[in-house]
Amino acid sequence: MDNNRPIILITNDDGYEADGITQLTEVARQHGKVVIVAPEQQQSGKSCAITHSVPLRMRLVSESDDITIYACNGTPVDCVKLSLYTLFRERRPDLVISGINHGSNASVNAVYSGTVGAAVEGCVNKISSIAFSSLQYDKKLDLGNVLPIISQIIEDVVRTPLPLGTLLNVNFPVGEVKEVRFCRQANARWSEEYVPHDTDSFLLAGEFYNREPDAEDTDEWALSHHMASVVPLLVDRTDYNYLHKLNYKYGR
Amino acid sequence: MDNNRPIILITNDDGYEADGITQLTEVARQHGKVVIVAPEQQQSGKSCAITHSVPLRMRLVSESDDITIYACNGTPVDCVKLSLYTLFRERRPDLVISGINHGSNASVNAVYSGTVGAAVEGCVNKISSIAFSSLQYDKKLDLGNVLPIISQIIEDVVRTPLPLGTLLNVNFPVGEVKEVRFCRQANARWSEEYVPHDTDSFLLAGEFYNREPDAEDTDEWALSHHMASVVPLLVDRTDYNYLHKLNYKYGR
Repeated sequence: MDNNRPIILITNDDGYEADGITQLTEVARQHGKVVIVAPEQQQSGKSCAITHSVPLRMRLVSESDDITIYACNGTPVDCVKLSLYTLFRERRPDLVISGINHGSNASVNAVYSGTVGAAVEGCVNKISSIAFSSLQYDKKLDLGNVLPIISQIIEDVVRTPLPLGTLLNVNFPVGEVKEVRFCRQANARWSEEYVPHDTDSFLLAGEFYNREPDAEDTDEWALSHHMASVVPLLVDRTDYNYLHKLNYKYGR
Repeated sequence: MDNNRPIILITNDDGYEADGITQLTEVARQHGKVVIVAPEQQQSGKSCAITHSVPLRMRLVSESDDITIYACNGTPVDCVKLSLYTLFRERRPDLVISGINHGSNASVNAVYSGTVGAAVEGCVNKISSIAFSSLQYDKKLDLGNVLPIISQIIEDVVRTPLPLGTLLNVNFPVGEVKEVRFCRQANARWSEEYVPHDTDSFLLAGEFYNREPDAEDTDEWALSHHMASVVPLLVDRTDYNYLHKLNYKYGR
């Protein structure tokens, strides 16, 4: 094994057999040795959830020279944590990539996303981390010219690691991508979030509501104009502006 | 019912019967009509996870003039979402408060916390939201002078709502609190995160590692010096500094 080759840890929230992670792996293997540690099953909407009280295990699915695949019974964050603890004690991954998610993780979806959650966890551990998502929900993703863009982003980040504490949240529109835009997270929420299931229970549903559809610097705007959106996200959520105001008003 | 009284939605991640939520309710009822919608069972470490594919229900536990209690089979974020959809369609809560969590949600713990997750969800819905946590893990919380501080914070936020998109993450040290500090989130992580369970499985454990123990402006520093920490957190995680750099380097 070439010890200078980057090690790329891949995970997702759709499960290790999903089409998105398979296509992402085909791109990533051009840039380094790939280790997949991904959920046994669907873990969508798990955000940065961690599993306690339930024993976690990793099952070796397959192993070859440049791709090793494990399935883990935990959340996306568990996959990152447990693999760092078990597989990467001597040499840590150079990159954590998560996805390609089947469905949007732009704007407020990033809050709930397990795909983004896994990238947050890589970032907490000081590893350059990227979440990739497609706005397609289909089981098979028709990715057009998305894969060369992913390849370019991986190459850029392997060459120039991300700032500590910053991850990338990358989303792709359906169909051809005209351009890649660096954006901020749009201000949005979900509304009418449930449908009745029976007399006293409800299933999650809902409509996406973008509070600023005309804001051209947002991920949602880019995606609705056939552009890929790249949003740098922080692990540190501190609102420094308001912190300064609070300290001015009440503080020392 | 006095329609001018504030409506306060209370939730947590330790379950509706936990001591922390009971003590928080006793304080909150002095400031408004309280509706508790909290998990049936322990939901620690759920972050902003949401439940899809499984029907969610709310069970009315008890009802009086000023406190109504529901138990919900979902995550803390589900509790907020489902109650907004079912109970608060005509008049929304004036405040969402979450806690008092049994255990720290300072620094990186906020990433994984269901208590903080619920407050994030309130904030996504433009409701002033506060997460309260105690560094005590005990089943019964010995809160000393914490409750008057919580009362003051609730009073302040009812009078002056938080900026849209900003929530408060409040943590209390064990024992008496000398002072309340406005802080930033400390840069920390967990290390050595698992212990073997059997030959091929692991249980979450780990040691908290603060990367900046001497930084006096952090929540961890305040908490280790007998102070309560108040950290304003943003829903919008965009790293605007790095976004500007990316646009300067590659962008339009």
